[in-house]
Amino acid sequence: MSELLGVAVLGAGHMGADHVRRLDRVVSGARVAAVADPDADRAKEAAAGIDGVAVHTTAEAALDAPGVEAVLIASPGEAHEEALLAAFARGLPVLCEKPMVPDSAGALRVVEAEARGGRRLAQIGFMRRYDPEYRRLKSLLDGGRLGRPLMLHCVHRNVSSPPHFTSAMLVTSSVSHEIDAARWLLGQELTAVTVLRPRPSAGAPAGLIDPQFVLFETERGALVDVEIFVNCGFGYEVRCEAVCESGSARIGEAHTLLVTAAGAAREEVPQDYLVRFADAYDRQVQAWVDATRRGRVTGPGAWDGYAASVAAEAGVRSLETGTRTPVVLAPRPALYDPS
Amino acid sequence: MSELLGVAVLGAGHMGADHVRRLDRVVSGARVAAVADPDADRAKEAAAGIDGVAVHTTAEAALDAPGVEAVLIASPGEAHEEALLAAFARGLPVLCEKPMVPDSAGALRVVEAEARGGRRLAQIGFMRRYDPEYRRLKSLLDGGRLGRPLMLHCVHRNVSSPPHFTSAMLVTSSVSHEIDAARWLLGQELTAVTVLRPRPSAGAPAGLIDPQFVLFETERGALVDVEIFVNCGFGYEVRCEAVCESGSARIGEAHTLLVTAAGAAREEVPQDYLVRFADAYDRQVQAWVDATRRGRVTGPGAWDGYAASVAAEAGVRSLETGTRTPVVLAPRPALYDPS
Amino acid sequence: MSELLGVAVLGAGHMGADHVRRLDRVVSGARVAAVADPDADRAKEAAAGIDGVAVHTTAEAALDAPGVEAVLIASPGEAHEEALLAAFARGLPVLCEKPMVPDSAGALRVVEAEARGGRRLAQIGFMRRYDPEYRRLKSLLDGGRLGRPLMLHCVHRNVSSPPHFTSAMLVTSSVSHEIDAARWLLGQELTAVTVLRPRPSAGAPAGLIDPQFVLFETERGALVDVEIFVNCGFGYEVRCEAVCESGSARIGEAHTLLVTAAGAAREEVPQDYLVRFADAYDRQVQAWVDATRRGRVTGPGAWDGYAASVAAEAGVRSLETGTRTPVVLAPRPALYDPS
Amino acid sequence: MSELLGVAVLGAGHMGADHVRRLDRVVSGARVAAVADPDADRAKEAAAGIDGVAVHTTAEAALDAPGVEAVLIASPGEAHEEALLAAFARGLPVLCEKPMVPDSAGALRVVEAEARGGRRLAQIGFMRRYDPEYRRLKSLLDGGRLGRPLMLHCVHRNVSSPPHFTSAMLVTSSVSHEIDAARWLLGQELTAVTVLRPRPSAGAPAGLIDPQFVLFETERGALVDVEIFVNCGFGYEVRCEAVCESGSARIGEAHTLLVTAAGAAREEVPQDYLVRFADAYDRQVQAWVDATRRGRVTGPGAWDGYAASVAAEAGVRSLETGTRTPVVLAPRPALYDPS
Repeated sequence: MSELLGVAVLGAGHMGADHVRRLDRVVSGARVAAVADPDADRAKEAAAGIDGVAVHTTAEAALDAPGVEAVLIASPGEAHEEALLAAFARGLPVLCEKPMVPDSAGALRVVEAEARGGRRLAQIGFMRRYDPEYRRLKSLLDGGRLGRPLMLHCVHRNVSSPPHFTSAMLVTSSVSHEIDAARWLLGQELTAVTVLRPRPSAGAPAGLIDPQFVLFETERGALVDVEIFVNCGFGYEVRCEAVCESGSARIGEAHTLLVTAAGAAREEVPQDYLVRFADAYDRQVQAWVDATRRGRVTGPGAWDGYAASVAAEAGVRSLETGTRTPVVLAPRPALYDPS
Repeated sequence: MSELLGVAVLGAGHMGADHVRRLDRVVSGARVAAVADPDADRAKEAAAGIDGVAVHTTAEAALDAPGVEAVLIASPGEAHEEALLAAFARGLPVLCEKPMVPDSAGALRVVEAEARGGRRLAQIGFMRRYDPEYRRLKSLLDGGRLGRPLMLHCVHRNVSSPPHFTSAMLVTSSVSHEIDAARWLLGQELTAVTVLRPRPSAGAPAGLIDPQFVLFETERGALVDVEIFVNCGFGYEVRCEAVCESGSARIGEAHTLLVTAAGAAREEVPQDYLVRFADAYDRQVQAWVDATRRGRVTGPGAWDGYAASVAAEAGVRSLETGTRTPVVLAPRPALYDPS
Repeated sequence: MSELLGVAVLGAGHMGADHVRRLDRVVSGARVAAVADPDADRAKEAAAGIDGVAVHTTAEAALDAPGVEAVLIASPGEAHEEALLAAFARGLPVLCEKPMVPDSAGALRVVEAEARGGRRLAQIGFMRRYDPEYRRLKSLLDGGRLGRPLMLHCVHRNVSSPPHFTSAMLVTSSVSHEIDAARWLLGQELTAVTVLRPRPSAGAPAGLIDPQFVLFETERGALVDVEIFVNCGFGYEVRCEAVCESGSARIGEAHTLLVTAAGAAREEVPQDYLVRFADAYDRQVQAWVDATRRGRVTGPGAWDGYAASVAAEAGVRSLETGTRTPVVLAPRPALYDPS
Repeated sequence: MSELLGVAVLGAGHMGADHVRRLDRVVSGARVAAVADPDADRAKEAAAGIDGVAVHTTAEAALDAPGVEAVLIASPGEAHEEALLAAFARGLPVLCEKPMVPDSAGALRVVEAEARGGRRLAQIGFMRRYDPEYRRLKSLLDGGRLGRPLMLHCVHRNVSSPPHFTSAMLVTSSVSHEIDAARWLLGQELTAVTVLRPRPSAGAPAGLIDPQFVLFETERGALVDVEIFVNCGFGYEVRCEAVCESGSARIGEAHTLLVTAAGAAREEVPQDYLVRFADAYDRQVQAWVDATRRGRVTGPGAWDGYAASVAAEAGVRSLETGTRTPVVLAPRPALYDPS
């Protein structure tokens, strides 16, 4: 192959600009054909130095730009539904950042629209599925050597939360990664969620319920627990232990440079998800470009985006009510049957 | 010092015989003065080869044997209350294996009897408090360097459960270690317990609810979660992570001999608590002998034994009802005020 | 940028075909413009499915093919000198697999030819310089936080050696990686080498001196020791510890998936350098393409290839004579002065 | 057993006083019967608070004190030969701190004296043989699962050296531990030693050759390398990797409390051999007391002390001459044949 896939990138903020850079310089087989952002200057800045890019202020215009064969949506979550429907209308393959659509009703509309079209077009940006550690764990679980998974113990810690981060966003923005990872690793839907509230850390902003401890139940009886702590102060840590019938497997404890100095052996902990998952972002986009050029969708799809939003909404209700809350999904269209 | 403390050992089963050996050959400053077991042959066998030991079939007779200055109770749990009261009546210091008394009503009677006597005499065999790793963790938490503890994540796995082990015993016999460890590490009483039931492992005996996932809340808002899995098949693992406001600390992952062979780097996992905690048992008894010779009680006491039995009973109720169950303690006698 | 760099790949064996795949599917900004191999079928097979590739049986023809702007040499080592000189004659930038030239006399001729041209064109395939762990170590050493490096302890193990691997090749083919890594990490030339011969392993082919233990001295007094063991049978391991004046740092012990099962906690050890260094190969070629498109050479150059061949030759002499052997370099042309 | 073994402790300095405390309070089955030190006050201070201890200023007087059945020699190395011969003359079992006798000629006289007596009486204080990690490694090697050992890679680091520590003492006082450990682990005598001198650390006192890199060859072709670095500044580290024909095993990397805080996962490194090997000292003396009470010697003996002093002397010569130096032992008396 040598023809490059022309991609329109919607959104030129932090994440969008990073995807523009990635498509231009890291990923093989693609080129940036258009960039759209309501802020024209921001769009121009992201596109600077790249040959043959159309710059627009609306998604529609970018989708219709010459040479656009696929779409990468990195605009704010509220704009995703409209952008996805516009891409579907044009038959364009899409890679859409998470959350697919923030509310589950909108997410369901996207699922239904894609299902009506009869062809899978959307991949959702659950990039952990492309992290080498998660993939090794998935492969181990699928191989069956350790028997059936019984529990997942997850830890998800950030140094600090961004301004305006709310207690609900610990579930909808942070734990949503574990929601997708659990569904994918276990191959099961979630059926209930309980959010527990230990006394907040003195390091959390006033009023923020941080940390939280979240429990998921699954359709075949597995239990998933997640510590989410977004103002832990000391590093970015994502760990997962799968406890199975005849063994346990853990990821997220990699150490690569062990320094012994001043009375301690130290392993530096990354401070940021862009460090920890840099490779996963690259692999995700490369895999999407490769599959798209072959006319396929191989990553997590609209159904996964919908299921994550339903579970996240149930989590927010549990956080508010303090009680176990069922996760109830609409019937799954046949388009999303596992192959 | 050279005078040896004369100890009566009650119970000459597996644990009792091991304590006889320990007092005779490992611990400094003590000697076995009497051994009692309803099975006289078993008592004789445990005492074989030791000079000057009286062998009896009743606890009372052993307590009254010449040279007995202290008592180590390793008889079955049902016999503990009577033995403790008999020791208190004679003013003898006691080291009593856990559970102090299986039911909380009996445990409370022991607390009240000791309180009436006005002098602390009993130490309870929560030997994890003497494990070097737990002690380093306790010392770190008490030092305050990591801020206030918010959560404890605990894992407790056995290769297989003994015959006749019941679902309730996962809480009363196994998790009771974490109950005491959590109270001790955090310096807080437990206030509620919830026992969750993932689908049982195919490796568990039919009818046994194994694994279980147990949640404790504490009086100052910490959350403690415990995976208890007594038929995990692959090793004896006891891990604990304390998540604090500005750091996290983990024990139970020690590796000491790392073997790389046949495509893997391997660390052998101990198969048995007697291997993992051999040192803790030795240190516990040495510390008890040392303190007793100086007329003091420095280890966990009758109040700790009582609090553990109340929490364990609440856990069993939660296992049966599936709901969160409060842990309600009687008022603590002044004798047990922290010094 | 969107113009793709046209690359001629010389050699379509195992390594060459892998580079063709990498340039076509992994690396951004390049395309395969020509493939050459004396075996025309092999060249065609490597080029299959790629648009616009010229296939040739000689290096010269491939270098002259339309659209060729740079050269990747992956032919056997004996063919490198001629290919490098041909590339230099055409002013083409080159990435040349190691060894640059097997004998140091030929390597010096390459250095002199490039120096005469007055412009750096060649990068040598010491891909460890692109491994994330090595880069973190290099960055730590350069930062000076641990003081001056005093010693490097290196381990280099292969599961088994290929057929026809000779005792000298443990030095020239395997330890050559440590030769370059040591020069790069320390920023110093090597001055002497001593090869020690423990009794060979029963797992080594008859007559092969395996393992060997190699010592390098450097111009500013550091000591480098390398265990090379190419029939260790159990895995591919590359470790390096830098011992500095105020601390030590180690790489090569990464663990990413820790499996506890059947009585042991296990970390799988990769069996192959293509697994361990897959990422380094990708990053090396991407970095070369990126620099070449900007008209620069940023990686290890012809001088590094020459220095490695001199040290390797001295190592082979030490292996034969059993004595410490000086490493004597020709004067370094100004072209290779550190910038 | 309940009769306590009466022990005379010779030397009441740092090490002697620690052994007095150990015999009195830690070890089971022994009591301190006499303490001797030329400094009478120091001897009295060490014996304070212990019942029935004779205090003397000469070794002879202490050996002849009532109740003395065994001797622990912790006086300066120059006094060991006379004390050992005095103990042999009285038929008293001895535990003698290392070095047994500083010069190999004196060490040989001790061996010959014990051999003339026809009965093994002396154990030498190579306490690493009682460290649980070393014992697991020894047991693994003896089991043969990994095949024949080919190499040992050893690291031995101290935070700083005591005043008046000389370059030769890096070999005689520090590496002597590795000398004994290598002989014991491999079950082979050493045949040659080479001491290499990297440029000294800026952290070493002026004139001290620190670090050094020491190579031992053994009678069946194994190679042992030792990094000795006694002013590393950052911690006390003792590591050993045994590379065998079908696997490798490492000790000395234990981690027990892993703290993640302030951007790093940290394991504290002990600062002192008394922390790292506290347990080994206790186990060594307990094992010696246990064996002595049964009339046996089970630990390293006078031959091991002699062999260590010959290898250390050869090491010092190699350090001075810069050349490989043979290690030549006198014929081994039959008394020391392995049983």
